[in-house]
Amino acid sequence: MYAAILAGGSGTRLWPLSTKATPKQFLRLPGPRTMLQETVHRVGPLAPAEQTFVVTSGDYRAEVRAQLPELPAGNVLVEPAPRGTAAAIGLAAALIAARDPQAVMGVFSADHAIADVESFRAAVAFGERIAAQGYLVTLGITPTYPETGYGYIRYAAPIAHEGGIAAYAAEAFVEKPKHPTAEEYLRAGCYVWNAGIFVWRVDHILAEMRRYLPALADVLDEIGAVAATGSQDAIERMIAAVWPRLRDTVTIDYGIMERASGIAVIPTSVGWNDIGSWAQVATLFDTDELGNAVVGLDERHYCAVDTGDTLLFSTSGRVVATAGVEGLIIVDTGDKLLICSKEHVQKVKDVVAEMQKRGHG
Amino acid sequence: MYAAILAGGSGTRLWPLSTKATPKQFLRLPGPRTMLQETVHRVGPLAPAEQTFVVTSGDYRAEVRAQLPELPAGNVLVEPAPRGTAAAIGLAAALIAARDPQAVMGVFSADHAIADVESFRAAVAFGERIAAQGYLVTLGITPTYPETGYGYIRYAAPIAHEGGIAAYAAEAFVEKPKHPTAEEYLRAGCYVWNAGIFVWRVDHILAEMRRYLPALADVLDEIGAVAATGSQDAIERMIAAVWPRLRDTVTIDYGIMERASGIAVIPTSVGWNDIGSWAQVATLFDTDELGNAVVGLDERHYCAVDTGDTLLFSTSGRVVATAGVEGLIIVDTGDKLLICSKEHVQKVKDVVAEMQKRGHG
Repeated sequence: MYAAILAGGSGTRLWPLSTKATPKQFLRLPGPRTMLQETVHRVGPLAPAEQTFVVTSGDYRAEVRAQLPELPAGNVLVEPAPRGTAAAIGLAAALIAARDPQAVMGVFSADHAIADVESFRAAVAFGERIAAQGYLVTLGITPTYPETGYGYIRYAAPIAHEGGIAAYAAEAFVEKPKHPTAEEYLRAGCYVWNAGIFVWRVDHILAEMRRYLPALADVLDEIGAVAATGSQDAIERMIAAVWPRLRDTVTIDYGIMERASGIAVIPTSVGWNDIGSWAQVATLFDTDELGNAVVGLDERHYCAVDTGDTLLFSTSGRVVATAGVEGLIIVDTGDKLLICSKEHVQKVKDVVAEMQKRGHG
Repeated sequence: MYAAILAGGSGTRLWPLSTKATPKQFLRLPGPRTMLQETVHRVGPLAPAEQTFVVTSGDYRAEVRAQLPELPAGNVLVEPAPRGTAAAIGLAAALIAARDPQAVMGVFSADHAIADVESFRAAVAFGERIAAQGYLVTLGITPTYPETGYGYIRYAAPIAHEGGIAAYAAEAFVEKPKHPTAEEYLRAGCYVWNAGIFVWRVDHILAEMRRYLPALADVLDEIGAVAATGSQDAIERMIAAVWPRLRDTVTIDYGIMERASGIAVIPTSVGWNDIGSWAQVATLFDTDELGNAVVGLDERHYCAVDTGDTLLFSTSGRVVATAGVEGLIIVDTGDKLLICSKEHVQKVKDVVAEMQKRGHG
């Protein structure tokens, strides 16, 4: 199998740890590997390094190369400008198809955590076989609570099963629901979270792009033609030449998945976490009996008196003491400090907006 | 008038800002002067620099000299070891008596804040006149709420009054009360907080020490004898020689005030604050409409989203952001960070104890 790892994100929801200069995929969360390294490691037994592609932006090329020295240089694909996941996935598909037109590719985000790696690999391997039969396969995450921050996928008839893993016909990709709707989905038992994990044949996804996103398909055809014979330099020159013709920014969900037929969904329970907020970071770490997690400081450097349900995350080594606090996220990066209640982690984006106004890019 | 300023405290209730190396009296709270400088400045119109004595420990002599260059070197008195406020006050009284046996001295703490300096000076000046008549005078603070952390003084018959200020006969010095008792005191209207502010003739207080604390009086007599004629060096050698004879550590309250007769109390409302906790520090600063005070950071360096009733005190200049928090004390000194709820500021002492265990003296 080939793997396409999307590593172009520049989110700042984990400010001040994640910044535009060092977004989430390059951080050691929970460690010891960075999230990007962990993603490559996770798919390693399914896709060898020479068949693993990373799609990123020019700003991050050097960091990706530094973190993944085992990847051939030509496997780090740089988008001249972000044009959504459809274009990023299409770019990888075109390059892979130039090498092996019938290849199966998996699509993975570089900044998601997965607790149960063995189950994940088994589900992807099963997905690979279903994809080879002509399905667009997506791994869905069986919901454990009525999350309103994710899209859902409704599924119906079973397509195939193998060793406790089953694939179903996807009926609909649905937007982030309101809370009562999310509760219905949870009860219904035929909805999964859309985690952005896909498996398909490259010729299949490129054919769907030709049908639903013809402007993108034209661009990918030109890149694919050079990729079949050209040098890495020639490929990059062609990408630079044709990429500006992409006017729209389109997600794979909106561009393809919500329109295409023949989609199979594999419900999984693999401990998936998109680490979209500090509250979700907190769930990555073991806590003491009071619900506290301390990351980056040894016992000599912190002291918690009457403190509960609090994450203290430090990269500075400075001494930190808390007293009489509950449900806090404390992040100390040395030059920046965030103190946020777990209930209000969504407000970190307001903090970042304010900070940008104040000149702290 | 002479002034004796007690500046030997080494409290750490304002950790991590105050430490043994830099206790509260040497800090700019609320600034721009340090608390010690502010105390000298406050009594300046009543006691000139050459009549102002500071009693401190050897560790702090250099800091006191540096902060108060206007004081003669011989006016900085060093206790070889702390033996309570009775000994500290006695030392100042003995040195002052050697110069002027009938002098009136005021006793002030170097680490208390007073908002209404004019009223304070008027009350002390009135106290000076009462003291000259032969009273041991104490300025009491009219309570504004049922504080359980202070001692109280009950008073009865009026002794004298002048321009809206009155002195009453003190009936009893009482210990820190439980809450219901503190409420009774507040309602009764004849109790004031014992703020440790005294005015008396030096011969009077030395006579009381002779009566109630004869071992201390013996030591003071020897120091006083040298002080009358000796050099600063000779005085310090004598202090070093006789101070070890003081075995007990005795407060002026327990040693003298609770036993002596002829005590006058002057109730005052001068905005006194002993800054005994971070919650009290918070009251020193203006707040915005949400109850937040930011000290040490300009607007470019902090960002408060959905934050209320919070004190952010920084000496580090690092960027700080808060989101969704209420009623916090945040103190950032660069190498140490405290995050404490206002309700639990008393637990800072537990933090300090823990930190000491962990080797952070």
